[in-house]
Amino acid sequence: MSKRTVFFVSDGTGITAETFGNAILAQFDMKTRHVRLPFTDTIDKAHQAVRKINHTGETEGKKPIVFTTLVNMDVLKVLQEHCQGMLLDMFGTFVNPLENELGIKSHHRVGRFSDVSKSKEYHDRIEAINFSLAHDDGQSNRDLESAEVILVGVSRSGKTPTSLYLAMQHGLKAANYPLIPEDFDRRQLPPALVPHRKKIFGLSIHPDRLAEIRAERRPNSRYASIENCRMEVSEAEAMMRRSGIRWLSTTTKSIEEIATTILQEIKPERLVY
Amino acid sequence: MSKRTVFFVSDGTGITAETFGNAILAQFDMKTRHVRLPFTDTIDKAHQAVRKINHTGETEGKKPIVFTTLVNMDVLKVLQEHCQGMLLDMFGTFVNPLENELGIKSHHRVGRFSDVSKSKEYHDRIEAINFSLAHDDGQSNRDLESAEVILVGVSRSGKTPTSLYLAMQHGLKAANYPLIPEDFDRRQLPPALVPHRKKIFGLSIHPDRLAEIRAERRPNSRYASIENCRMEVSEAEAMMRRSGIRWLSTTTKSIEEIATTILQEIKPERLVY
Repeated sequence: MSKRTVFFVSDGTGITAETFGNAILAQFDMKTRHVRLPFTDTIDKAHQAVRKINHTGETEGKKPIVFTTLVNMDVLKVLQEHCQGMLLDMFGTFVNPLENELGIKSHHRVGRFSDVSKSKEYHDRIEAINFSLAHDDGQSNRDLESAEVILVGVSRSGKTPTSLYLAMQHGLKAANYPLIPEDFDRRQLPPALVPHRKKIFGLSIHPDRLAEIRAERRPNSRYASIENCRMEVSEAEAMMRRSGIRWLSTTTKSIEEIATTILQEIKPERLVY
Repeated sequence: MSKRTVFFVSDGTGITAETFGNAILAQFDMKTRHVRLPFTDTIDKAHQAVRKINHTGETEGKKPIVFTTLVNMDVLKVLQEHCQGMLLDMFGTFVNPLENELGIKSHHRVGRFSDVSKSKEYHDRIEAINFSLAHDDGQSNRDLESAEVILVGVSRSGKTPTSLYLAMQHGLKAANYPLIPEDFDRRQLPPALVPHRKKIFGLSIHPDRLAEIRAERRPNSRYASIENCRMEVSEAEAMMRRSGIRWLSTTTKSIEEIATTILQEIKPERLVY
C-alpha cells in the first residue's frame, strides 16, 4: 500500500477541509499521514505552507495531496502558483458555478465561525450542551418539558455519547435516562418520563456486545455477566415495545449514524428531513 | 434576498454533505431552507429523493441546490439523469482526479462510519468522551496522567464545551479544572495539576462577557457582578502568566476555533500540525 502525506489548508479552523478530505480519502485503501495547517490567512503563511508541502514532496518523492478551503483569493493564488502538491480546492470548484446559478457574488469572507460566538445559534448550542450534561443519566427531572429528545436504554447502550453529540452537532437539548432493574420490576417507564413519551427514543444493544463493554469497566461482575446483560436487554426491549417507544440497536452503529436515525424519526422542528 | 431550498443527499449520515454544503453556502448572503436526505442508498430511495427535489423546484419556481456525497454510482446516476436541481457532487468531482494521481481505484463503498463501531479509533473516542465527562469541572484527580489536555479557567470561561468537543471530534482525553478564589488566595495552581503543567492550557474571557453569561444563570448575584468577574479574570490571568501556562481569550471565539488553537499549541502526538 502506498503511503501519502495529506495536507489540510484553511484560513479558518480547517475542520471543513478535514471533513471534506477524510470523506474523499475514505474511498481509497491507502495509508496516509495527515498534516493540518489551519489559520493560513496571510500571504506569508501561504508561503510557509507551500514550503512545507514542497519540502514533503521532495523528501518523500511523491506529490502530497492538498485539500484546501481557502476563501481568501490571494492566499489561494500563492498555493495555486507555487505548490507542487495535488491541489483539491473545494471552494474554487463549487463557489464559482454557484455564483452563476444564484446570480449573486460570494463574499469570500473567512467565516463559518467568525462572530458566531455572539449568534443565537451559537448560544443555543452552548445551552444545549449544558442541558444535556445536566440531564445525563437521569440526573435531573427538572425542565424535561424543554428537552427535544429523551433517550432511554440500559446502562452502556450509548445514551451519553449520543446525547452529547446531538447537543454539540445539532444544538438539540437531549436528556437521557437509564432503564434499570427497578423499572423492569415495575414493568413501567420511569414515572418522570411518562408525560414526554413522544420525545422518547430507545437505544438497545446486542447482549454480547454489552457484556464486552461492561466488562471493560467492571470485569467479572454480575453487572457485566452475559446472563444479566441478556436479561436487561430483553426486559428493556419488551418495555419499549409495550410503551410504543421507537428504538434502534446501537451494536454496529457509530454515534453519527445513531444520531441521524433519531433525528429522522423525531423530526425536531428546526431540522427538516 | 433570495431564498432557496438546499438538499443534502447522502448514502450515509449526510454529515459530510452538510458540512461541505454549509461551508460553501456561508460564502453567500442568502436565506436557505435545508432538507436532509440521509441513507439514500437504493435506486428506489434515489427516485424518492428526485421527486422531492423536483417537486420543490416546481413549487418554488427556483432550482434547488443539491449537495451530494454519494458513493454508490447507480444512486448518483438516478440523480444526475432525473434531478432538476443544481447538483454539486463532491465525490465525483474529486475522486476521479485522485484516482489518476494515486494510480489506484476508489472502492465506492459507503463507509466513513461503517464498521467503525468496532474500530480502535472509535473505541478511543468513546473512552475520551467518558474520560472528559468524569474529569469535568475538577470532579476527579484520578488518572490525570492519561489526560492529553487539561483546561483551566474561571467558571463559565468555556472549559466544558471545549473539553467535550476535543473528546468528541478529536478523540482527545481532555480534563478541565476551575480556577476558584481559594486558588487565587493561595496564589498557586490547584496542587493536583502541578505535575501536569505541560498539558495545561488556560481559557480566559473578557469580564463584561463573563458577567453577561453568569447573569443568565444567577442574575443579580455577587458571582455574576462585574466587579467580581473583573477580579476573577485578572487573578486567573496573573496566575497563568506566573505559572507559564499558555492561554487564550474565548470571548469572540467559537468552540471549534478554541479547540483548533489548543491543538496547535499542545500538539498531541496523534495529530500533526
